[in-house]
Amino acid sequence: MSQFINARDAIVAEAIDGLIRVSGGRLTRLDGYPNIKVVVRSDWDRSKVALVSGGGSGHEPSHAGFVGRGMLAAAVCGEVFASPSVDAVLAGILAVTGDAGCLLIVKNYTGDRLNFGLAAERARGLGRKVRMVIVDDDIALPELPQARGLAGTLFVHKIAGALAEDGADLDAVAAVAKRVIEATVSIGMSLDTCTVPGSPKENRIPSGKAELGLGIHGEPGVEQVDYVHARGAVEAIMAKLAPFVTDRPHVLLLNNLGGTSALEMSVLAYEITRSALGARIAHIVGPAALMTSLDMRGFSVSLLPSTEADLRALAGPVTVAAWPGLASVSEPACVAMPSDLVAPKPRPSENRTVRVVVDQVCDALVRAAADLNTLDAKSGDGDTGSTLAGAARALAAGVDELPLDDLPALLTTIGVTLSQVMGGSSGVLLAIFFAAAGDSASRGAGLQPALQAGLARMQQIGGAELGDRTMVDALTPALAVLGEGVDRAAVAARRGAVATASMTQARSGRASYVGADRLVGNVDPGAEAVARVFEALASQRKRD
Amino acid sequence: MSQFINARDAIVAEAIDGLIRVSGGRLTRLDGYPNIKVVVRSDWDRSKVALVSGGGSGHEPSHAGFVGRGMLAAAVCGEVFASPSVDAVLAGILAVTGDAGCLLIVKNYTGDRLNFGLAAERARGLGRKVRMVIVDDDIALPELPQARGLAGTLFVHKIAGALAEDGADLDAVAAVAKRVIEATVSIGMSLDTCTVPGSPKENRIPSGKAELGLGIHGEPGVEQVDYVHARGAVEAIMAKLAPFVTDRPHVLLLNNLGGTSALEMSVLAYEITRSALGARIAHIVGPAALMTSLDMRGFSVSLLPSTEADLRALAGPVTVAAWPGLASVSEPACVAMPSDLVAPKPRPSENRTVRVVVDQVCDALVRAAADLNTLDAKSGDGDTGSTLAGAARALAAGVDELPLDDLPALLTTIGVTLSQVMGGSSGVLLAIFFAAAGDSASRGAGLQPALQAGLARMQQIGGAELGDRTMVDALTPALAVLGEGVDRAAVAARRGAVATASMTQARSGRASYVGADRLVGNVDPGAEAVARVFEALASQRKRD
Repeated sequence: MSQFINARDAIVAEAIDGLIRVSGGRLTRLDGYPNIKVVVRSDWDRSKVALVSGGGSGHEPSHAGFVGRGMLAAAVCGEVFASPSVDAVLAGILAVTGDAGCLLIVKNYTGDRLNFGLAAERARGLGRKVRMVIVDDDIALPELPQARGLAGTLFVHKIAGALAEDGADLDAVAAVAKRVIEATVSIGMSLDTCTVPGSPKENRIPSGKAELGLGIHGEPGVEQVDYVHARGAVEAIMAKLAPFVTDRPHVLLLNNLGGTSALEMSVLAYEITRSALGARIAHIVGPAALMTSLDMRGFSVSLLPSTEADLRALAGPVTVAAWPGLASVSEPACVAMPSDLVAPKPRPSENRTVRVVVDQVCDALVRAAADLNTLDAKSGDGDTGSTLAGAARALAAGVDELPLDDLPALLTTIGVTLSQVMGGSSGVLLAIFFAAAGDSASRGAGLQPALQAGLARMQQIGGAELGDRTMVDALTPALAVLGEGVDRAAVAARRGAVATASMTQARSGRASYVGADRLVGNVDPGAEAVARVFEALASQRKRD
Repeated sequence: MSQFINARDAIVAEAIDGLIRVSGGRLTRLDGYPNIKVVVRSDWDRSKVALVSGGGSGHEPSHAGFVGRGMLAAAVCGEVFASPSVDAVLAGILAVTGDAGCLLIVKNYTGDRLNFGLAAERARGLGRKVRMVIVDDDIALPELPQARGLAGTLFVHKIAGALAEDGADLDAVAAVAKRVIEATVSIGMSLDTCTVPGSPKENRIPSGKAELGLGIHGEPGVEQVDYVHARGAVEAIMAKLAPFVTDRPHVLLLNNLGGTSALEMSVLAYEITRSALGARIAHIVGPAALMTSLDMRGFSVSLLPSTEADLRALAGPVTVAAWPGLASVSEPACVAMPSDLVAPKPRPSENRTVRVVVDQVCDALVRAAADLNTLDAKSGDGDTGSTLAGAARALAAGVDELPLDDLPALLTTIGVTLSQVMGGSSGVLLAIFFAAAGDSASRGAGLQPALQAGLARMQQIGGAELGDRTMVDALTPALAVLGEGVDRAAVAARRGAVATASMTQARSGRASYVGADRLVGNVDPGAEAVARVFEALASQRKRD
């Protein structure tokens, strides 16, 4: 699969420049391309302890995305998954370190330890006060003395960053960073490997399996486990973390390793907060992509027992868009459903004239069913007649329950009935037609303007205009002359329906997906239905 | 490939509950599961115009993730890629709409138009003031009268949301929403299809191809185009947008469709801001996942000509973590490299005794090369001898340039030289050893304590402890007795080196990856090198 990159050796420099260009002027970089890639806070005045982090790229937004007030003063970026050079780290340190000194926050990988370590030594040789802490929050291999640095690093950035922003001295900032590192544990799980730019993707994890205890450089996890569902994944992760969890409340950091969808991350948040350890998790950072492994479909969980001071620091303000903030975890409290969601049934009332109209319309639609189906088969799935007839039968069967003597209520009720008994878009559109007509009538409109208001609203929602080969082409002319009598309306409706047979540009509704050659010569079934209804009413009037 | 979900029909409800649980109490939902999934602001008091949006799920963080102060009052969520029911939308409207009324922001898909439209009609029938706007920002098919709603919807949420938050009335909020919709254009591109939960993934896009002009429901793009690199992708996107761009400055929204890595998104931001239209882009929202199509590896670009009022609204505060904020776009300004990055070369000085020691140490390492390589071959790649000999030759060749009569400068300079001429971890570790020793000596320490300070720092950075089968096992005892003479040091170094032969628990360095059976009986080559050096110095002293 392709990726949105250019030349492989330019990825990191281009990504950094992209980040800087859209940072609103908050970020800048050292003039050291291509070898030295150091992102620096634009407003940094060296008056406080400078936090510097970095390492190989591919973990975005870490670390350049966390450069900003309240977090890092600079990030030193290597190529993808490759440690930056000693000179790059040294340049980063020298660029931001004033009298207050500098704290290097380094994830526990040999290359980073060595290069940051030597750069620190050099900087000390140049008279700078530099301390270095090594983050080793991974618990995947408890027996390994040199645990990897994972997303728990963000706890260090944020808590030490808040302290430094408050003006604490280097010893205090370093001491807090060490305490956070010692208290933080992390572990990750993935369903797929990551795509390293310019390299073929390794399909290492078969379907139905997950890797548990993985690093952030595409290396295999400590074990492949069976994967069934999100709940099982969370249970496996929480079982690994359980031995490290104390009775105190904890902060949990839920990290997207890059390629997990937001939907999945929310499902994981759901499972984590209601897991066996959920009660111990009082606060959360994320879910968010914080320390990624390129596009890996996986997540990691980091835990830190929470102190009041740490919570204050984690909640402190930053100018960093990638930091999602701290939130308390709570059981979701539901709000009661609105009491008027189900409208009270209108009181039935009698009106002989109206009853006859309703019966006549319904009867006309039932009788037209076969013809309408035949017409619909030319451009659709041939069910317009059956759909309308079904709705008509339901309406007719319930005519005794209708408020026949209350026009607004009658129109509204017909709309509700149609939305319940008639499927598809046409059911909803007719429901809108009658609901809007009822609304208009309730505000004093007579039948004709009320129906026209309904038509306007149906067109607004459905998007059909005159000439689009829909029922609108019959309904519009019919309603326009309805005030002059139902006979005129029937003639107008028929004329409008016939005209649809020569409309080839169906721009709305299902016929818009059908070629013009299949449409020409056939009347639109919706328009035909409208004409049949008005014609039935007209002939009924004559019989009366 | 598996996904982090549970039962398919529970995904959306679980994801919503996950979102609510980690919202810090900001969100709640209607008590209407499983059919009615409506997320509501906890602190909503109905005193202002309520913005309600929603639609099918799978576009997270849209729309539930944008419920909060300054954006939406409620989001009505359907199942994945399926419109919510009329009843769900109506429940959402009724739950949040007070006297100020409600604006429905609906993306232009038939199901959403109909269901939101009928719900609006019902709500009006229940006496609520409801307006509805339909977002149709897609320009992929210019001739299509009903363009789709894409990520430009976020412009509407944010700008109308800020206005509503400021207390504007419904007409004003609806008018602004309509103006923004009319002015916004969007188009997207993808390199892969999305994975619909519970369905097999369709591999529709071959390598080397991209789909241009796609929707957000996994449907095919308008065209498949050749894909070469990020620059070409941006050029194709910008060519589609160009006809809609005026001379005014624009705001660009750069949306991750879900599965694009942050590194790629930054490369795209880089290409977009320096593209042909880049000069017209004064502000940007993102790159961020705003309107996703599950895990699709793609992006979309939305453009809005910027007015002062819109920019103020886009920059206004929200309590919504998913909103990335507005930033100005700027050419990256570089900061000059630190001037003292390259330390001045120390002035050479002469000291016959020191010169002899340096020569002797170098000579010893050159002579030991073959033996050390042989030892190293037992546990590594057999180059320890060659590496050390190469460094020794380089050091000896430059001895006339060394500050032989200035111990701190000499140690520091040796450190710098080693980091330049000696590759691998060992080169960096020795550089750290000498740099830290020089730093210590410069603060007044004598040779022995200075070297011990170097050793301590090298151990801190490298992580090796006594007994870990490294050069530390010879260096520690040797330096401990160096004050009593080099003879004693040589004996101690040899004893320490010999002891490594029985150490099977290599916990640091490359030998940690080798089985114990291959280590037993063999002296560690680093420790052997240390012993050889001290032994050479001792025998030299005897010859003197």
